[in-house]
Amino acid sequence: MKKLFGALLLCWGMQASAQKAHENLVQYVKPIIGTERMGHTYPGATVPFGMVQLSPETDTASYDLNGKYNPKVYEYCAGYQYEDKTIVGFSHTHFSGTGHSDLGDFLIMPTVGELKLNPGLADKPGSGYRSAFSHANEVSAANYYKVKLDASNITAELTTSTRVGFHQYTFPKSDQSHIILDLMAGIYNYPGKNVWTYVKIINDSTLVGYRSTNGWARTRNLYFAMKFSKPFIQHGFKKYDQREVYGGFWGKFNQSKNFPEIAGKQIRAYFDFKTEENEKIKVKFALSPVSMDGAMANMQAEVPGWDFDKVKNDGQAQWEKELDKITITGSVEKKQNFYTSMYHTMINPTIYMDADGQYKGLDQNIHKADGFTNYTTFSLWDTYRALHPLFNIIQPQRNADMVRSMLVHFDQSAEGMLPVWSNSANENWCMSGYHSVAVLADAVVKGNAPFDANKALDACVATARKRSYEGIGEYIDKGYVPDERSGTSVSNTLEYAYDDWAIAQMAKKLGKTDIYNEFIKRSENYKNVYDPKVGFMRPKKADGTFRAKFDPLSTINEGFIEGNSWNYTLFAPQDPQGLIKLMGGNQRFVRYLDSLFTMNLPDKYFAETEDITRDGIIGNYVHGNEPSHHVAYFYNWTDKPWKTQERIRMILPRMYKPTPDGLGGNDDTGQMSAWYIFSSIGFYPMAPGSVDYAIGSPSVNSAVVQVGNGKTFNITVKNQGDKNVYVQKITLNGKPLNGLNITHDQIMAGGDMVFYMSSKHK
Amino acid sequence: MKKLFGALLLCWGMQASAQKAHENLVQYVKPIIGTERMGHTYPGATVPFGMVQLSPETDTASYDLNGKYNPKVYEYCAGYQYEDKTIVGFSHTHFSGTGHSDLGDFLIMPTVGELKLNPGLADKPGSGYRSAFSHANEVSAANYYKVKLDASNITAELTTSTRVGFHQYTFPKSDQSHIILDLMAGIYNYPGKNVWTYVKIINDSTLVGYRSTNGWARTRNLYFAMKFSKPFIQHGFKKYDQREVYGGFWGKFNQSKNFPEIAGKQIRAYFDFKTEENEKIKVKFALSPVSMDGAMANMQAEVPGWDFDKVKNDGQAQWEKELDKITITGSVEKKQNFYTSMYHTMINPTIYMDADGQYKGLDQNIHKADGFTNYTTFSLWDTYRALHPLFNIIQPQRNADMVRSMLVHFDQSAEGMLPVWSNSANENWCMSGYHSVAVLADAVVKGNAPFDANKALDACVATARKRSYEGIGEYIDKGYVPDERSGTSVSNTLEYAYDDWAIAQMAKKLGKTDIYNEFIKRSENYKNVYDPKVGFMRPKKADGTFRAKFDPLSTINEGFIEGNSWNYTLFAPQDPQGLIKLMGGNQRFVRYLDSLFTMNLPDKYFAETEDITRDGIIGNYVHGNEPSHHVAYFYNWTDKPWKTQERIRMILPRMYKPTPDGLGGNDDTGQMSAWYIFSSIGFYPMAPGSVDYAIGSPSVNSAVVQVGNGKTFNITVKNQGDKNVYVQKITLNGKPLNGLNITHDQIMAGGDMVFYMSSKHK
Repeated sequence: MKKLFGALLLCWGMQASAQKAHENLVQYVKPIIGTERMGHTYPGATVPFGMVQLSPETDTASYDLNGKYNPKVYEYCAGYQYEDKTIVGFSHTHFSGTGHSDLGDFLIMPTVGELKLNPGLADKPGSGYRSAFSHANEVSAANYYKVKLDASNITAELTTSTRVGFHQYTFPKSDQSHIILDLMAGIYNYPGKNVWTYVKIINDSTLVGYRSTNGWARTRNLYFAMKFSKPFIQHGFKKYDQREVYGGFWGKFNQSKNFPEIAGKQIRAYFDFKTEENEKIKVKFALSPVSMDGAMANMQAEVPGWDFDKVKNDGQAQWEKELDKITITGSVEKKQNFYTSMYHTMINPTIYMDADGQYKGLDQNIHKADGFTNYTTFSLWDTYRALHPLFNIIQPQRNADMVRSMLVHFDQSAEGMLPVWSNSANENWCMSGYHSVAVLADAVVKGNAPFDANKALDACVATARKRSYEGIGEYIDKGYVPDERSGTSVSNTLEYAYDDWAIAQMAKKLGKTDIYNEFIKRSENYKNVYDPKVGFMRPKKADGTFRAKFDPLSTINEGFIEGNSWNYTLFAPQDPQGLIKLMGGNQRFVRYLDSLFTMNLPDKYFAETEDITRDGIIGNYVHGNEPSHHVAYFYNWTDKPWKTQERIRMILPRMYKPTPDGLGGNDDTGQMSAWYIFSSIGFYPMAPGSVDYAIGSPSVNSAVVQVGNGKTFNITVKNQGDKNVYVQKITLNGKPLNGLNITHDQIMAGGDMVFYMSSKHK
Repeated sequence: MKKLFGALLLCWGMQASAQKAHENLVQYVKPIIGTERMGHTYPGATVPFGMVQLSPETDTASYDLNGKYNPKVYEYCAGYQYEDKTIVGFSHTHFSGTGHSDLGDFLIMPTVGELKLNPGLADKPGSGYRSAFSHANEVSAANYYKVKLDASNITAELTTSTRVGFHQYTFPKSDQSHIILDLMAGIYNYPGKNVWTYVKIINDSTLVGYRSTNGWARTRNLYFAMKFSKPFIQHGFKKYDQREVYGGFWGKFNQSKNFPEIAGKQIRAYFDFKTEENEKIKVKFALSPVSMDGAMANMQAEVPGWDFDKVKNDGQAQWEKELDKITITGSVEKKQNFYTSMYHTMINPTIYMDADGQYKGLDQNIHKADGFTNYTTFSLWDTYRALHPLFNIIQPQRNADMVRSMLVHFDQSAEGMLPVWSNSANENWCMSGYHSVAVLADAVVKGNAPFDANKALDACVATARKRSYEGIGEYIDKGYVPDERSGTSVSNTLEYAYDDWAIAQMAKKLGKTDIYNEFIKRSENYKNVYDPKVGFMRPKKADGTFRAKFDPLSTINEGFIEGNSWNYTLFAPQDPQGLIKLMGGNQRFVRYLDSLFTMNLPDKYFAETEDITRDGIIGNYVHGNEPSHHVAYFYNWTDKPWKTQERIRMILPRMYKPTPDGLGGNDDTGQMSAWYIFSSIGFYPMAPGSVDYAIGSPSVNSAVVQVGNGKTFNITVKNQGDKNVYVQKITLNGKPLNGLNITHDQIMAGGDMVFYMSSKHK
């Protein structure tokens, strides 16, 4: 019995904490990475996959005081730009690394002195409640953010639990201390986005409310409960709506001060305090997608007390546990890159249900999650590539719950489709393809399918047969999406073909031969948009001829999305041999790849390229967007596999730096970071839906991957060095590994993989 | 045992149906009464206290096609004006007899021929989906409405269950038959009132959706489920909103036809059919205040099948049972007046919860009604007077549930107050006083309090002590509401005093002496706004002097609401003797009353009087508004009680006629009708909160009141006649009744009351 007990101690958590004794990993997380320019990450506090993302807003691409629209809408997807000099406040929801904007709900700002309810302008100090700040007075860590607000001398500290944001404001002595709750604020908050907001004061330190918005999530409701650690002396609201027809009755009360409720489209609230020097006022702010009661219950369940440090430490312990899933050795810089990448892969998708399991469904009804955790924020065009495959290794349970979340989405979908880009009980149909099928297929093929796999296959098939969706009908009939049907007809054709291949793999695994045959045939469709005359994928018209106007370097109106033909022509990761043959064989294919990485892209084409910085492009290879994420690994299928190793080791340091401007493009809810994690430990899921990983060139000295059940997959890199990028030999559990491939089962079995590196290629 | 069983058969229901064998009462219900001009009733279908009120709209005081506002907003409170020549469609929610406008949710209209999605203008036939109709082709009965739509030759029939509207449309033969669902429509539907609407098509004959509005109910959500008896061939939406920022993604689908969902602020939907000559298409439309799932469950629970006649008959059987609570003998005209009055008293308040007991609370959370039926639509300034007292006799269970509904409202209130004028989980604070306390007191004092009476008292006291509400603080401090604090300071002072007296009665009944003393003292406050110099109640300033500007005939800016000083000076029904003394004694008081009924009111004052027709005024006595409803009974406290009898018999036929224009003012959710019922059977609750009823002069030949437990209170009128309006003698259970008073216990004990009438007064 004693022996058995000892063995039990060797379970996952124990091992992890045993190992943690070696080194604290949270110290390497720098959420500030990617906050400058195009990374679109945020520096604030969150726990892994947390429903609350509590972070400062430096701007929100909203309309300014004069009603003039801020054109930089796509720069403020996460509400924060590192170059900015002022902070507007701290809001509770943020996307991490997206290219589109929404959220930024419930902005809170502490101030002192004369009450200013308007945020004011960044270039006019004192014009509103906005405050200057300095990065010298800023701390951004996992689940902890701190900043000094110069306008008020208030120090703001933020931390979170899954569903609760916790603010700690250290005030100066003042008879006029305020905490503002701005329900008008929001990221990309164009007029009309707020369809309704509501606030109810419960007592002198507690309030609840909600916000209904029409944004990227078209029909969205988010509820809150808010508690102050100290009673406010008085409170007030200001309503900026146009007349209320029945507003006259409100004359019954003097509502200018201390009225207990308000509703409308444009509301700000304030709460007044007297503070002593260095007095701390704490605020707990819980969210719920279901109800105000739900928000209150979430607060009670997660943060019943007022211990800021406990909430911070609990959240950081969660991060420590998650970061520990892959540990590396290497330089501090590499650790910062690596663990911040790990951090960025575990923010989105986010948990989207109350502590009691209730959530708002896509059908706008309230549901109870039956035996799973419901997630939202599925940026699937990005994340099917490497993020979900990474989850299948280090977050198998969460990935299965994400699949379950997609399946209930399917059940609740008016269109009868799996998610494309879903958030907060809404589908926004963003980007091309139907890549949720690749996520489902990857989980099933890899054996991480503790859900109804046959139902999952049915959902994939129904989605892929939805004839009315962006040219699928024509794609089925003609084998490609005609140029006339879609502005991104070629991307769609290529991505549908890929997704169809994934469905076929899933069907094969489940023994559904008919489905396999149907979809493996469809997966060949990528060939139908290849024009051998020009050597590129090219928009094809309904009559079968290629469109005359064609510029393979342009991304504007050329039939592609977030990529040009040069990059997209390589989009057949499911069939490297077939693609190589199609493109003229090994030699021509290598030359094509080489050109991609080395050509000099004229500036005019760079200007067209969305969501990335100039550094996000290498030659004409666009790492800052996703369509080429597999491309560097293509050399493995040619006679020059060492070029994969060379390219990976070139991309890694150029595209990922441990600095605010360190990300060359949108992190895209963790896909860019997941690419980094895989590539830096030596392999990459070339085609999710298969069990294979293509081997590249690891940049770490060693890595330990927790693969579950207490097992580890240990990667050792011999003779590592910046110039030693070439893989001379690999052993797996002491035996030579033949070929440049490793399978999922080989990894998940645990074991030792040793890379022998050299400065010369074989 | 056999004998016992026989005794059980004598329970309420059995007795009722035994009696019903005599005569069908539903035949006398004419919902069309009051639909012309100021009655503000609606002619459509509903069951007693039904959540659905399915009725035609002839107009909705909305904006016209050119964006020009219809100034007749207060004429369309119920959506129907008898003089109108066209019908816009049939919507599912209506107030009955109110003076303010809201609701009119989910308008449905069947058409044939070219699809027109705009309602068009009444004076431009064919300009939209609106249709001409004729009263000759119209049937308006309890729970049944039928009309022929001239534009399409469609016959529309409507009936309901509590939560489901049932439409039956008989179409001509057409390849272009349509049913339009207009989510933009609504009563008093000013721009911005729709904050969000949503529709989801579930299959070719089923859809769900919701509508969120900002109207009289400021934050209101109503959900629906809709089923057609026949699949539609195709459907479509039209959205009239301004641009959606993220609308571009919707290009993924062709949404012009057959797209399964839509959301926005301004939406119309249509459903296309082919119909044979006389083909019936039926529509079931269920509501829920909670969710779309709730609406679907309500439909399934109440109307699982498609038998229109069954639903109609079931609803009419409900009416028959309710009408049977008081039966009368008299002329057909009197029966029409009487049973239509009975009908109008049993529409509002309305049930406001799903079949499973869930409802939306005032706090905007979802609650489950614990052992009671939750009601909404409390027009309490009107209904505390006679409607709730009537319920305490013939609807004791419902009245107790209404009190419970008010108590949960109190619990959920941000202000910590009982309802003033509440609807659909919202408080609109309309009118003066806090008369819910009179409803609670009346129930407690009369022993109909199967709820926590002490909690009810606490709620009353909390409400009455809410210093920040319309001058209550000053009222407590100074004994009156100062003119400076409220535009209706005198009405408020008088009504607060009345309500305080009611609280005192309740406290006395519950043995709370302190509360009794506090509030009986407050109830004397009415005397503080009486100016003996002019002999009228008059606005008093904070400094204790009366306001100089004063016109006792005017209702504009004189300190009163829906009444002038002449009428309001008599507002102390709780203390007739005190008032008579205050006003100079018996002789002067009689002269005052006589003048009120006989004076010639200059036209300019009539023009100021809200919500009533010219006929709604007798002299300067305004029966069409409520403040004087007790006034005719005041003669009982003078030496000329026969004048009460004379006035009542004058008012009854002048103010109530069985015609569309038969109501002299807003029915006010049944208060006007309740006055009719009481007065026509011979007594009236002068001061709810006491057990006493003042005796008037019955206009019926006899009446049988079901007082519960199988008992009846039988009223017989000997020597009845239009001129025999004077009561010579009354016996109760064979013994002379002394005085002009009868108590609640005397009525509820059952028994025989005989009036002996004469053409000469005593």
